[in-house]
Amino acid sequence: MSYISRRAVIKTRNISSVSVIVLGETYIGDGTLVMSNVIIGVPRRSKLINILSLNSSTSLEELLDGLSSGSRIGSRVIIRSGCIIYEDSTIEDDVELGHGVVVRENVKIGSRSRIGSGSILDADIRIGSQVSIQSNVYIPRGTVIEDNVFIGPCAVFTNDKYPPSKKITGPHICRGAIIGAGAIILPGVEIGENSVVAAGAVVTRDVPPGSVVAGVPARPVYSVEEYLRRRETYESGV
Amino acid sequence: MSYISRRAVIKTRNISSVSVIVLGETYIGDGTLVMSNVIIGVPRRSKLINILSLNSSTSLEELLDGLSSGSRIGSRVIIRSGCIIYEDSTIEDDVELGHGVVVRENVKIGSRSRIGSGSILDADIRIGSQVSIQSNVYIPRGTVIEDNVFIGPCAVFTNDKYPPSKKITGPHICRGAIIGAGAIILPGVEIGENSVVAAGAVVTRDVPPGSVVAGVPARPVYSVEEYLRRRETYESGV
Amino acid sequence: MSYISRRAVIKTRNISSVSVIVLGETYIGDGTLVMSNVIIGVPRRSKLINILSLNSSTSLEELLDGLSSGSRIGSRVIIRSGCIIYEDSTIEDDVELGHGVVVRENVKIGSRSRIGSGSILDADIRIGSQVSIQSNVYIPRGTVIEDNVFIGPCAVFTNDKYPPSKKITGPHICRGAIIGAGAIILPGVEIGENSVVAAGAVVTRDVPPGSVVAGVPARPVYSVEEYLRRRETYESGV
Repeated sequence: MSYISRRAVIKTRNISSVSVIVLGETYIGDGTLVMSNVIIGVPRRSKLINILSLNSSTSLEELLDGLSSGSRIGSRVIIRSGCIIYEDSTIEDDVELGHGVVVRENVKIGSRSRIGSGSILDADIRIGSQVSIQSNVYIPRGTVIEDNVFIGPCAVFTNDKYPPSKKITGPHICRGAIIGAGAIILPGVEIGENSVVAAGAVVTRDVPPGSVVAGVPARPVYSVEEYLRRRETYESGV
Repeated sequence: MSYISRRAVIKTRNISSVSVIVLGETYIGDGTLVMSNVIIGVPRRSKLINILSLNSSTSLEELLDGLSSGSRIGSRVIIRSGCIIYEDSTIEDDVELGHGVVVRENVKIGSRSRIGSGSILDADIRIGSQVSIQSNVYIPRGTVIEDNVFIGPCAVFTNDKYPPSKKITGPHICRGAIIGAGAIILPGVEIGENSVVAAGAVVTRDVPPGSVVAGVPARPVYSVEEYLRRRETYESGV
Repeated sequence: MSYISRRAVIKTRNISSVSVIVLGETYIGDGTLVMSNVIIGVPRRSKLINILSLNSSTSLEELLDGLSSGSRIGSRVIIRSGCIIYEDSTIEDDVELGHGVVVRENVKIGSRSRIGSGSILDADIRIGSQVSIQSNVYIPRGTVIEDNVFIGPCAVFTNDKYPPSKKITGPHICRGAIIGAGAIILPGVEIGENSVVAAGAVVTRDVPPGSVVAGVPARPVYSVEEYLRRRETYESGV
């Protein structure tokens, strides 16, 4: 069984008939593929909480539908099974989501970006175009990721310097930066343009543009030019 | 389609009609919200295995229902989509689960605690009240977490000193402790009252109450008083 | 609602009636247990993409079914809720999957192996028999894992030395090796027979057979004989 809001505007026919829920004034563009067990337009926490004290005979999906502002999904987007997208988010054309990706409210994902299976994007995040986020990555509220960034699997971003505090300072990942697998990025850190963070690094301070850092805590190891030279040798298979 | 056991006692009306499965003598309290694709009362592994040799014409959900002891869910609990709760667990009032949380058998989660999306709580765990566990945290069998603990995203707890062994020694996290994002806590470690583990630390030995540790392996860096002073400065935005 | 391909050959009766999708010429052996929200036979990405430009009145599940080559699942396999298995993969007899495991195309999992909840196995992976992979582990394309390997929770494997490059070199984990929780294994690394990687280690180079490594970057700490001696003492509870 599925539930599609009467307020939703859906331009695609590629929607699974197995357990899909579309809430609020959600818009879904041409050709977009929505696999089974996907929910689009989940109301934010502050609205959900109000349901707890109701004892309405209205069905839960109708209640959620009534609360939801919906989200905007572009054309030719792939939303694989189990993805959860909250209200007030925008996913631009040609984006691709893996399985079970969670996208909270007020997130924007730019065109042609790809988010791997199991990744969690908390609320209030800006992600540019042609960004590649691999599987099982965690990105907290307030993070900014510019165009053409690459983030390896299981990387962890953080936004609270002295948790649990009342202040949030999301990391800022500049255009073209590369974050290795399992790296941990501390709150408020800026990763400069085209810089590289090695797998497993713990980044405790800003990384200047064009540098390569590694280790715990992360320290500069060589330049991006050297990185690109090594990549070329690696790819040529010598 | 959903499956609700005839033995279940359900006091709330806020249950999704999309793919919810409630097994055994499960009790669900007033106002509790159960979103789509949730399963409550999954039989433990030792029971599941018996089904493999059956060739019964009974449906799988009826077989599982017959095996399940059910679980006890309090009032005003939020269970978001995709959560899996095994049998013989207790979730107290006003608890909140994110999406896709797995709670195995014989787990107790105290009132007003919150567990983030994608976190996995293995069997035989005790979690106190007002505990905050962020997203993608892994907690193994035998762990004890006291009241008011905060655990950052993607933290990993372990319970076997020489895996794979026959002995399990879960960590013990004392009241008010704070564990940073991506920290790894080794087996049997006790994190003392109100102590702090920095993000990315690997904690190999007990942390005394009121201390702050960081690094790999984790070592003391300053006192909790200093931590709280720094938090205050941080929050005041200077 | 469920969708079972007319081309599928299913020998078991233990299949949930809640949101199960079986695509293509999938074979499922005797006794195998398939819980709710499972999809078997998902077409690989290169096929999925073709659907985006269709505007067919055929249902999405029928389109996917038509594209899928199916997968082969043995007898007495346990596939817990939310698992996603792509086409052209083989899961041998007596394998056990946790909840929400993702298995991409062209993966082989040998008999009696167990994969924990939330783990992701990318395409083109070989996993031997009696392998134990715990929860939330990430294994990328091209990885080889021999028989009797143990991998702790939240371990991260990688396959690209200078991401994002055009070359993939998956790690090779030899027979009987043990990888601790949260360890990160860099691309192309070989973990020798019966060697041990400690929890939280970042392994940057090959580990010789029979050695134990720990730290960031991982360095030898003692022999496997010593490890087994310590395990024995640990298990005896002294």
